[in-house]
Amino acid sequence: VAFEQRVSALGERALIERIRASIPPGSPDEVGAGDDAAVLDALGPRVLYTIDTLVEGVDFDLAYCSGEDVGWKTTAVNASDIAAMGGTPRYALASLCLPPDTETRLVDGVVHGMLEAANRWGIALVGGDVSEGPALVVTIALLGAATAPVLRSGLREAHALCVTGSLGGAAGGLMSLRARRDPSALPAAERRLRARQLRPHARVEAGLALAATAAAMIDVSDGLAVDLVNLLDASGLGCDIDPGAVPVDADLGDLRDQDGDPVDPLALALTGGEDFELLLALDEADFEAAADAAEGAGVTLTRIGVARPGTRMIGERAVEDYRRLGWEHLRPT
Amino acid sequence: VAFEQRVSALGERALIERIRASIPPGSPDEVGAGDDAAVLDALGPRVLYTIDTLVEGVDFDLAYCSGEDVGWKTTAVNASDIAAMGGTPRYALASLCLPPDTETRLVDGVVHGMLEAANRWGIALVGGDVSEGPALVVTIALLGAATAPVLRSGLREAHALCVTGSLGGAAGGLMSLRARRDPSALPAAERRLRARQLRPHARVEAGLALAATAAAMIDVSDGLAVDLVNLLDASGLGCDIDPGAVPVDADLGDLRDQDGDPVDPLALALTGGEDFELLLALDEADFEAAADAAEGAGVTLTRIGVARPGTRMIGERAVEDYRRLGWEHLRPT
Repeated sequence: VAFEQRVSALGERALIERIRASIPPGSPDEVGAGDDAAVLDALGPRVLYTIDTLVEGVDFDLAYCSGEDVGWKTTAVNASDIAAMGGTPRYALASLCLPPDTETRLVDGVVHGMLEAANRWGIALVGGDVSEGPALVVTIALLGAATAPVLRSGLREAHALCVTGSLGGAAGGLMSLRARRDPSALPAAERRLRARQLRPHARVEAGLALAATAAAMIDVSDGLAVDLVNLLDASGLGCDIDPGAVPVDADLGDLRDQDGDPVDPLALALTGGEDFELLLALDEADFEAAADAAEGAGVTLTRIGVARPGTRMIGERAVEDYRRLGWEHLRPT
Repeated sequence: VAFEQRVSALGERALIERIRASIPPGSPDEVGAGDDAAVLDALGPRVLYTIDTLVEGVDFDLAYCSGEDVGWKTTAVNASDIAAMGGTPRYALASLCLPPDTETRLVDGVVHGMLEAANRWGIALVGGDVSEGPALVVTIALLGAATAPVLRSGLREAHALCVTGSLGGAAGGLMSLRARRDPSALPAAERRLRARQLRPHARVEAGLALAATAAAMIDVSDGLAVDLVNLLDASGLGCDIDPGAVPVDADLGDLRDQDGDPVDPLALALTGGEDFELLLALDEADFEAAADAAEGAGVTLTRIGVARPGTRMIGERAVEDYRRLGWEHLRPT
């Protein structure tokens, strides 16, 4: 029966046909999947181009997330990179690496999740590739368009440093998922934390709304401390962040860790990662206008500190102390 | 010492810095690696966009190929897709999935091989992503430009079917590599076959030269029979291929299989795959001009048959009989 079918019973060709059939026809300006390459009309005036991969057992665990979640998240992670440039995501290619015994319905789920997220942010999935491999590895390449991309290097002394939305929720959700408590018995706040981990939202509308006033922008994918360093490194500046101003996710208030102790929401916000909020720099004088623009895009903008020459501090502690606790693939041993 | 260093001793950040430092600065029209996304000037008038992944243990075996070979081949495979559209490859993103115990010098090799191939075909490597995973998985997304892309669907009844160069050599090279004979003792012909397998050439110049006359085009990546079916499926036509006209690689003449028996060069040409030649269709009247254009791009064009309604035949046998012997990932069991 269908729900026990493995991809090895289909083979690459039939699997690609199956995926293709599930993708809605593209817009008239493109020739989609089915040729050697997708053909697109010119994008511009500036083209944005990014790639990101999620790996089973490293970036996600199928014990607590579905194929739909994986497909959604891989798309969202890439859309977030385009959002952080102040651009509009447009065209995606997907590469799926699958063990032969992968259930076909898992692949269906991944594709469905990709299409859901693509639909959410106006992205057309225009092609891809299927390979055999030792684990589920999902790669998306994403093209976007921008008029004036917001680079990290635009940061200047005395810029206000701001973040959209709230931080720490995705890390709290991961903590909850790893504890494997029965989802039906979870408080609503904890269910929302899990959703932040499994179905992150790229701040595409906010990125567009902020593109005119933001001097520099980055998405918060590896924890505020890590991405703050990434932002500051592009200009060599320091910063003074007020830890009391960092917008922690309100749903973290009642979360308990595996030992039953309350979690530290600020620690999760600074080091947790995967919130996919935007961290940006702007002239102090532009803050009110930017906050209004963000509000119009459905998200709160919070001023958390200032860029300055010299040291990089969050309150009394060096950013570096927190950065070391943030996420890094292939972490040095 | 450096040659025993594992990537887990560096971590993602230092590894990315190392890779970035090895990439030459981009052209003035681009902002390369180091921001959330690469920023490119508009491409056009039509944009080509493709992605392909090579997986350790499936698409390559590090027992007989180097990191340089893997980086080169992943780039060439993608460039071949752009060539098959009659386009110019331009911008690549790379995603590397690496086990923690991967030697740093293997990663250096992969990047070096990518850059060699990128340099060969005028491609700028503008960004990428590094992840941890259970095997080496190398994905490249490639953007290209074309004036009038050559689609598979342009095939019409009575078109001449032609291929560039020669076929079967890459499969012969794989056979030689798997037999693990000492390379120093190999005849020159067998060394050339190995090079076709390990360092394939994308027919970029030929694709551009043929774009004006080719009505339909595809690259021969999975064996002539497989890609012939892929080409024909786009129009629903049949074909009549003369097996005696198929240009088999001259270096296959003295190759022996594992039992010491001579190989069948035609069988390797029809089912072997990875030759990355171009299969194209054109009006019979255009053949001489196309052959001259191909010659100008350094490759021979050979007429191997004709498109027609009805059955698909290679001599007396159905194409389908050969197709089943061609390469397919996740082959149905």
